Amino acid sequence: MCGTDAQVLPVTKTSKPSSVSPAPDHEPTDHHPSDIIINLDHGDPTMYESYWKEVGEKYTSITIPGFQSLSYFANKKNLCWFLEPKLEEEIKRLHKIVGNAVVENRHIVVGTGSSQLILAALYALSDPLNDPNPISVVSAMPYYSSYPEMTDFLRSGLFKWSGDARCFDKEGPYIEMVTYPNNPDGVIREPVVNRADGMLVHDLAYYWPQYTAITSPADHDIILFTVSKCTGHAGSRIGWALVRDEKVARKMVKFIEVNTIGVSKEAQLRAANILETISLSCQQHKPRDLDNFFECSQRLMAERWKKLRDVVDNNDLFYVPKFPIQFCNFTRDFTETYPAFAWLKCKEGMDCEKLLRGHKILTRSGKRFGCGDEYVRISMLSRDEEFDLFLQRLSAIGGN
Amino acid sequence: MCGTDAQVLPVTKTSKPSSVSPAPDHEPTDHHPSDIIINLDHGDPTMYESYWKEVGEKYTSITIPGFQSLSYFANKKNLCWFLEPKLEEEIKRLHKIVGNAVVENRHIVVGTGSSQLILAALYALSDPLNDPNPISVVSAMPYYSSYPEMTDFLRSGLFKWSGDARCFDKEGPYIEMVTYPNNPDGVIREPVVNRADGMLVHDLAYYWPQYTAITSPADHDIILFTVSKCTGHAGSRIGWALVRDEKVARKMVKFIEVNTIGVSKEAQLRAANILETISLSCQQHKPRDLDNFFECSQRLMAERWKKLRDVVDNNDLFYVPKFPIQFCNFTRDFTETYPAFAWLKCKEGMDCEKLLRGHKILTRSGKRFGCGDEYVRISMLSRDEEFDLFLQRLSAIGGN
Repeated sequence: MCGTDAQVLPVTKTSKPSSVSPAPDHEPTDHHPSDIIINLDHGDPTMYESYWKEVGEKYTSITIPGFQSLSYFANKKNLCWFLEPKLEEEIKRLHKIVGNAVVENRHIVVGTGSSQLILAALYALSDPLNDPNPISVVSAMPYYSSYPEMTDFLRSGLFKWSGDARCFDKEGPYIEMVTYPNNPDGVIREPVVNRADGMLVHDLAYYWPQYTAITSPADHDIILFTVSKCTGHAGSRIGWALVRDEKVARKMVKFIEVNTIGVSKEAQLRAANILETISLSCQQHKPRDLDNFFECSQRLMAERWKKLRDVVDNNDLFYVPKFPIQFCNFTRDFTETYPAFAWLKCKEGMDCEKLLRGHKILTRSGKRFGCGDEYVRISMLSRDEEFDLFLQRLSAIGGN
Repeated sequence: MCGTDAQVLPVTKTSKPSSVSPAPDHEPTDHHPSDIIINLDHGDPTMYESYWKEVGEKYTSITIPGFQSLSYFANKKNLCWFLEPKLEEEIKRLHKIVGNAVVENRHIVVGTGSSQLILAALYALSDPLNDPNPISVVSAMPYYSSYPEMTDFLRSGLFKWSGDARCFDKEGPYIEMVTYPNNPDGVIREPVVNRADGMLVHDLAYYWPQYTAITSPADHDIILFTVSKCTGHAGSRIGWALVRDEKVARKMVKFIEVNTIGVSKEAQLRAANILETISLSCQQHKPRDLDNFFECSQRLMAERWKKLRDVVDNNDLFYVPKFPIQFCNFTRDFTETYPAFAWLKCKEGMDCEKLLRGHKILTRSGKRFGCGDEYVRISMLSRDEEFDLFLQRLSAIGGN
């Protein structure tokens, strides 16, 4: 059976509003539940702890002796010289099993989370243009709230944030971030600008079977993935890019060299081990004590979405999007999308983030995603206890 | 006894010149030694493998179960919310034992190597000025070859590289990088511009007893350290900053949030374990089977420098700097500086990098450090076999 371990509640007590930073400077408490602040602002994937606890250490533990991996280098023969061969192998194996991305004839670039790879891609695409003006970076609204900040925080002369892709009408080269399923709203996206001088970065952090139907292997110029959202190991800071063009891949590697001189070997080795376990769990003749990771995770996501829809349906204040049912080539079954975030809408004219904050639920305002404040993004990946408390409070707001 | 294990030779066969990238795309070979390319361009600290192999796994191995450290957060109570408490504790303990830095009333910010922390410091010092023009970043020549590239590669509007600090005469605020012992030349440095509107970043990667006398605890506004050069674990990508001002520390944390959303937990936990072992090895009543890390490492550095000086002294072509003897408060003895790099000078008018490359020794040209091409920087931290082969070839060049 897929796990539902009781979890420690990582909650905080404060009246401070949700901040841009993922660092609440509040202390965990053991106060009465009504005092507890539920922080669903970040997509911290602690939901997955229960699966990994049930699996047990024999499949997942990793031991690293003190003399291992001292060198900066992991594989001098590889274009990405800091990529551990074992991680490369397990990334390819998992994509082949899941069928969510083409890996043949692609360069794999590992990054310190996909955040670093987004910046690496912007650098790799903009620097060779030798344009005296920064290249526009766009994404269709509502877009991932970090894109504007990541693009602009160093006031780079290479690239700059230019907002909603649907409103973009500037001549010349541009970079469009295409995210599917989209963060925050779960929609399966396609590029919207569609001009010959456009360059695309596909952010597919959530294109895994627990979140959405795998309808075909993604096949784009630059595709980004991250273990944070695939396996739940956000603390490892491991992401990877599948890159078609060798020059672009080399330039991304160059960015990571100058930025951090490579990526932690310990994190790579552990990520490889975790991906290997997931692949094993998907085999037809898998060990009996190893539940299929994606089946378990999808079941949990489906349950959470059902519970959330039950609350929202019995409530006049809130609305969440509906998603089409599609055939998933991995599960060989029809499925809805179960996004990692709920994109909740209040009645027009209400400030949804403020309303929920008043009930000690921290969420991220729609304004951060280029939308109005009647929207909020809510993490669906918290621990069970926190998720249930969130639903209780949401019901109470509507008076059910 | 301190270890001198036979090591695998990580050497390469090629006629390509040393590149900016630490990624030689050459294959390891088992050719005759005369064919072997010795790459001493990077400061890859593989010299330390022998110590860590001798210590044995009981002191150094770390096991991480699959359910651990999923969250982005390590310590929500801390300003640096992604810093593992165990690492913070071990950093403080080691500084207190070695006496090389003041840790009381300092904020510790962990980074993906000290490279990321250099960028974080530049961001933290420049962004709050709200200056329409980028702040000048300077360092006295010869300066670490990565400073210009790191500062300028994104064409930031916040900061820009302005070269040799000794030639800097622009009015207004500036940032000076102060490195001691200096990379590449091992000199103990002080700031050179010394103006009221100057901001200092002290890069103390090599301020450890194996490289130089610890004359007093460093006490500056921002001090950077890295495990790469302290313990040899470059593959972990762990550095830390000791920061006096809370606002500056918060801004550095902000940089790391936007850049990589924190720092790998696996790497932090392992670094904590390694630092703990080093501290244990320095105790008066340490376990018998655990040699004092700094004593062993200093002995090895002293031996290598003696061998190098013997070769250079019997040779008309080359010169290496001499260093004063100072009292080290940690070892309670007088010692020279034994830098991690040899800053080798050829006779005037010779291109030293080209000369050595002709003898299959890859080094970094003095031009990369703001100097002439009669200089090269040579890593002193390679494995024994590689170091000995380097000395053989150097002797042969001079005709000894």
